[in-house]
Amino acid sequence: MRHEQALQRISTTGQGLYEFTRQVAGFVEKTGARTGLLTLFCRHTSCSLLIQENADPDVCTDMNAFFARMVPEGMDWIVHTAEGPDDMPAHIKTALTQTSISIPVADGQMVLGTWQGIYLFEHRRAPHERQVVLHFSGA
Amino acid sequence: MRHEQALQRISTTGQGLYEFTRQVAGFVEKTGARTGLLTLFCRHTSCSLLIQENADPDVCTDMNAFFARMVPEGMDWIVHTAEGPDDMPAHIKTALTQTSISIPVADGQMVLGTWQGIYLFEHRRAPHERQVVLHFSGA
Amino acid sequence: MRHEQALQRISTTGQGLYEFTRQVAGFVEKTGARTGLLTLFCRHTSCSLLIQENADPDVCTDMNAFFARMVPEGMDWIVHTAEGPDDMPAHIKTALTQTSISIPVADGQMVLGTWQGIYLFEHRRAPHERQVVLHFSGA
Repeated sequence: MRHEQALQRISTTGQGLYEFTRQVAGFVEKTGARTGLLTLFCRHTSCSLLIQENADPDVCTDMNAFFARMVPEGMDWIVHTAEGPDDMPAHIKTALTQTSISIPVADGQMVLGTWQGIYLFEHRRAPHERQVVLHFSGA
Repeated sequence: MRHEQALQRISTTGQGLYEFTRQVAGFVEKTGARTGLLTLFCRHTSCSLLIQENADPDVCTDMNAFFARMVPEGMDWIVHTAEGPDDMPAHIKTALTQTSISIPVADGQMVLGTWQGIYLFEHRRAPHERQVVLHFSGA
Repeated sequence: MRHEQALQRISTTGQGLYEFTRQVAGFVEKTGARTGLLTLFCRHTSCSLLIQENADPDVCTDMNAFFARMVPEGMDWIVHTAEGPDDMPAHIKTALTQTSISIPVADGQMVLGTWQGIYLFEHRRAPHERQVVLHFSGA
């Protein structure tokens, strides 16, 4: 029984979904894990985590478009505007998605469904260096 | 200290909330767990998990109705339409709710509040066989 | 390797975000934890958990305002109205945010990012006594 951690860095170049399933699978493999629990934790408040379909890239396009419509820039009642028009919408989109996700590991692999991919959902327009902590507890 | 897992299958017959609190409690009981952490993981991208009030069934009705209004079918800017008009809205509703939930276990029971029930939230219209992985780590 | 739990009580006096990062950090410190996983679980269906920016209080003001606009009171199709006009919106806001959050612990501290604070998001108007279970597994 043990706990292992790693820091996954993800460079983003604007709003949208960035898949990093392979990197997470690589971490799980490297731990030599058989059974346990993998937790992902995003260390930011203007980007978030999402498990979504990774078969058709149109899903990611539509996902990003929906959030841009649901939480548009320029809402005139916003008070927190000092960090740019995309900042407060980014915080709200983060609140509406996930900061942490836990995935069981069985037989050395995450129990993801056939179409599930792990994504960082970037909500800021400017390029950012993002950090996601990977944590495994198990044997 | 140990990890135990089980696969919970849930048959759905259309959009809405399907409670399976009792099945999860049965899994916890069967492990003989005293103290630990239970994690639920949904292996799909068009249904999700939710902890909600299980006292008045109207809450589930209204919950489903709200999501149908917030993410309606037929949004004309949607690109991913190949799998039917309810598919992309299902992915979005999944993103807005949960794919994994963790619940502490104390004295052999989940620490759910009085009114909390565990639900699968089905976002597709057609019947589906859904899978939720139950994972317990503890003693 | 061990599991430790505590109950964090939070008194709320109306809708909005209540930070309790310091109390959670105090729990982690008290366990003498070095490496592991901290999970927070909210025992209610009309308030929720959120990790958000704790630098500018305007972020919390805007967050609360957005949710009030996205899920307004008085939607005329609501069936569950017996517990007051703010009750069903509170359930919906809870569904749109988090009931559980997991945060890795490294070197005795949660791996929160620089601007991340832990909040209870109260969705009811009346004062409430809320309960969040803190669970640590690790060494």
